[in-house]
Amino acid sequence: MTSSGTRIGIIGSAGRMGQAIAAAIAEAGETLAGGIDKDGDVAALAAQSDVLVDFSSPGALEGNLDAAVAAGVPVVIGTTGLEERHHFLIDHAAESIPVLQTGNTSLGVTLLAHLVREASARLGEDWDIEIVETHHRMKVDAPSGTALLLGEAAAGGRGIDLAAHSERGRDGITGRRGTGTIGFAALRGGSVAGDHSVLFLGDGERVALSHLAENRKIFAKGAVRACQWLVGKPVGRYSMPEVLGLEVPGL
Amino acid sequence: MTSSGTRIGIIGSAGRMGQAIAAAIAEAGETLAGGIDKDGDVAALAAQSDVLVDFSSPGALEGNLDAAVAAGVPVVIGTTGLEERHHFLIDHAAESIPVLQTGNTSLGVTLLAHLVREASARLGEDWDIEIVETHHRMKVDAPSGTALLLGEAAAGGRGIDLAAHSERGRDGITGRRGTGTIGFAALRGGSVAGDHSVLFLGDGERVALSHLAENRKIFAKGAVRACQWLVGKPVGRYSMPEVLGLEVPGL
Amino acid sequence: MTSSGTRIGIIGSAGRMGQAIAAAIAEAGETLAGGIDKDGDVAALAAQSDVLVDFSSPGALEGNLDAAVAAGVPVVIGTTGLEERHHFLIDHAAESIPVLQTGNTSLGVTLLAHLVREASARLGEDWDIEIVETHHRMKVDAPSGTALLLGEAAAGGRGIDLAAHSERGRDGITGRRGTGTIGFAALRGGSVAGDHSVLFLGDGERVALSHLAENRKIFAKGAVRACQWLVGKPVGRYSMPEVLGLEVPGL
Amino acid sequence: MTSSGTRIGIIGSAGRMGQAIAAAIAEAGETLAGGIDKDGDVAALAAQSDVLVDFSSPGALEGNLDAAVAAGVPVVIGTTGLEERHHFLIDHAAESIPVLQTGNTSLGVTLLAHLVREASARLGEDWDIEIVETHHRMKVDAPSGTALLLGEAAAGGRGIDLAAHSERGRDGITGRRGTGTIGFAALRGGSVAGDHSVLFLGDGERVALSHLAENRKIFAKGAVRACQWLVGKPVGRYSMPEVLGLEVPGL
Repeated sequence: MTSSGTRIGIIGSAGRMGQAIAAAIAEAGETLAGGIDKDGDVAALAAQSDVLVDFSSPGALEGNLDAAVAAGVPVVIGTTGLEERHHFLIDHAAESIPVLQTGNTSLGVTLLAHLVREASARLGEDWDIEIVETHHRMKVDAPSGTALLLGEAAAGGRGIDLAAHSERGRDGITGRRGTGTIGFAALRGGSVAGDHSVLFLGDGERVALSHLAENRKIFAKGAVRACQWLVGKPVGRYSMPEVLGLEVPGL
Repeated sequence: MTSSGTRIGIIGSAGRMGQAIAAAIAEAGETLAGGIDKDGDVAALAAQSDVLVDFSSPGALEGNLDAAVAAGVPVVIGTTGLEERHHFLIDHAAESIPVLQTGNTSLGVTLLAHLVREASARLGEDWDIEIVETHHRMKVDAPSGTALLLGEAAAGGRGIDLAAHSERGRDGITGRRGTGTIGFAALRGGSVAGDHSVLFLGDGERVALSHLAENRKIFAKGAVRACQWLVGKPVGRYSMPEVLGLEVPGL
Repeated sequence: MTSSGTRIGIIGSAGRMGQAIAAAIAEAGETLAGGIDKDGDVAALAAQSDVLVDFSSPGALEGNLDAAVAAGVPVVIGTTGLEERHHFLIDHAAESIPVLQTGNTSLGVTLLAHLVREASARLGEDWDIEIVETHHRMKVDAPSGTALLLGEAAAGGRGIDLAAHSERGRDGITGRRGTGTIGFAALRGGSVAGDHSVLFLGDGERVALSHLAENRKIFAKGAVRACQWLVGKPVGRYSMPEVLGLEVPGL
Repeated sequence: MTSSGTRIGIIGSAGRMGQAIAAAIAEAGETLAGGIDKDGDVAALAAQSDVLVDFSSPGALEGNLDAAVAAGVPVVIGTTGLEERHHFLIDHAAESIPVLQTGNTSLGVTLLAHLVREASARLGEDWDIEIVETHHRMKVDAPSGTALLLGEAAAGGRGIDLAAHSERGRDGITGRRGTGTIGFAALRGGSVAGDHSVLFLGDGERVALSHLAENRKIFAKGAVRACQWLVGKPVGRYSMPEVLGLEVPGL
């Protein structure tokens, strides 16, 4: 499954994800080409890498992309907090090199989103959709980004706008559930790395599609898998579903 | 397990619970002594019953208790919406006859509440408690009464006040989870009769205590079981845990 | 979703499924054209029906198909225990009328099988597949037919033969799990109508795809939905996935 | 919760559990007194420890107990594979020092076993008991030791003999479920550290009591907690339930 020996360069190597990726590269039998952080020489790193993986910061993106294009090296971007102008930069770079950008590198979550979209498209509005997630006690926001990503998949399958059809923070006298809405609930506690379930609740039956992360290493592992997949691809912009051979929705 | 032939009289026999209890009496091999509704003759019903079961209305409670006391017949009270003065009436009647009053007649929920109290008392505050419930799309309030009952059991096990330690309707930037709180989440959809889970989330491990009702017949079945248990008991006030041989907490 | 007023004739109307279908026809706002059992006049029933639904017995199939073909009326076949020669008869009838044959009429299970096939095709052999089901205490065989149907979907997604890759009845010293196998486990108890979960267990993460039947009415409801869908379709042989707009796998 | 500064000596310090315990001692803010393995000087270790924890081998047990008794130091024994004669040695040592012996050091599992015993004692034989566990793909036996421990708790609650009432490895034509039996099912795959669920399946309702281990560190953490608890206790033999303040069943 792995093309042994791919040289992977890490941008943002001192961060938690950067360190986890270094471990995942070793586990996958690939080669760590090197790692840099703020003020590191990205051109030098690119020169000795078959592929770059960037988990640094939005502010560093332009320089990183320039170096990758100059060296003709593909790049996987997992940096979060991107704005519209960053996406323009990525589109532009993707005219010269292969670029894969994603907000979630877990293969299981990527597959789950695909299945949720499919289920949502097939089951009528008489199946109520609820999304429930559990995370460790330190998480400060709700719902999780992954829950929202799954919500987008569910809304996409039905061709509706998520924000206009969400029920969040149910408490007190809520009235009966709105038809065609998507509910969110968040549980917090312990050291839970991340559980997500999407429930389709019909008349007399239920379908539940769930993902459980045992730890956060899976995100690093998925990033390495994306690197392996991206090497040798034609110039263009890619995303995680394609790593699993899934069609990318038009949304 | 059943003392075959117990004659059970239903007060509120035309309501949904009344009808379900009539069916449950037959299934349990007991005898339906009769049933009355508003303006029915409760004294006549009491005269031909070994035990009465009341799922009518708070307004009818005083008359029902008077008739039960006059006939010396025990009574199971499942009427909801009781206020303090109704509890005084029950205490008074319980000086003359056996009275069992409860807001939930399910044996499984009764046991679950006991186990939750026990777990909560044993596990330290470093185990976060979350309660999540799922009900059909027509339910208009959240959390469910049973979720709150389970929350009281959890709070009771720790000797804390539930209202002062609840986290409900989590949404948006919530900050990290409060230590020692009890979280509630409500899912709604389909025809779900009622699922409840109480999660104890520790560092590296989790304990989950759950109940699933396949349908609402279990409440009628539990009411009949309470009737069977109450016949022949000494004068006094009882509750559901005692039907299962559980100690009633001082709370 | 329903074309109101479709006249549905039930073959096998006195059986448990036949009775449930009669109730489901009323609930769906359709018309019960009539019902027959052994020795009933299927030609007369066909003459007054827009579509027939057959939950009788394999022995009655040939006569039922002949009558449907003679009347030019489509037929949904849910009869179990069919052998190869019955399938030949169905293929032959499907040259003259629309025929939908299926061993499971639940929409939720039909969708689940589709999602399982999709997940199995996308996730590599390093994701172990386990199928666990729970049924009531009276069930005499294991695994359930639905569990095997889901197993076939999982095996189909990977292009392997199910029988040659099954691990069943794990107990004692089993040795480490075989790579690429599909495990089955069966739980029995209470009045459970039917829970099924297909687990994909990877390194550090898990995906679970589940279905829960609250009661057996869903099978009748799905049969009525199949009837509604079949009316007006071109001559040919169909199956449940098509009712949900799913592609039928070549298997 | 911790009496900071307890000096803990590890017998079997190079093994997987030994290493994990060393890490857990640091995390708990206690002091690692030292560690030995085969041919190490247990008397010297005992002399500098407030409590010993032994995860070595049955063959080393006698020498370890002798050294602990000579030094008057309490000892926690987590060694597996003990036979009757080892238990005699432990009983004998427990006349001179506090000894805590256990086959499972997880606090969550210890609590779960207690709750299972309680539920089993309260619910009648009309509630079927099923135990299902999931472990990683490398595990070679089924059911897990913890599943059997939970089975013993369930059987103990009902006052029955587990071996005579087990249903294991259900497959094929099994006939209807036996009343009063306890079923076991084992799932295997991925890197699952250990999930256990005990289901009580009644007529129309279910109670599920579950434990999920996110990783194996919890066993080391529980062992350290047992060490902390044991220091200062009177001479005698103890077990894990007492660490949680639970009564030890007579079984």
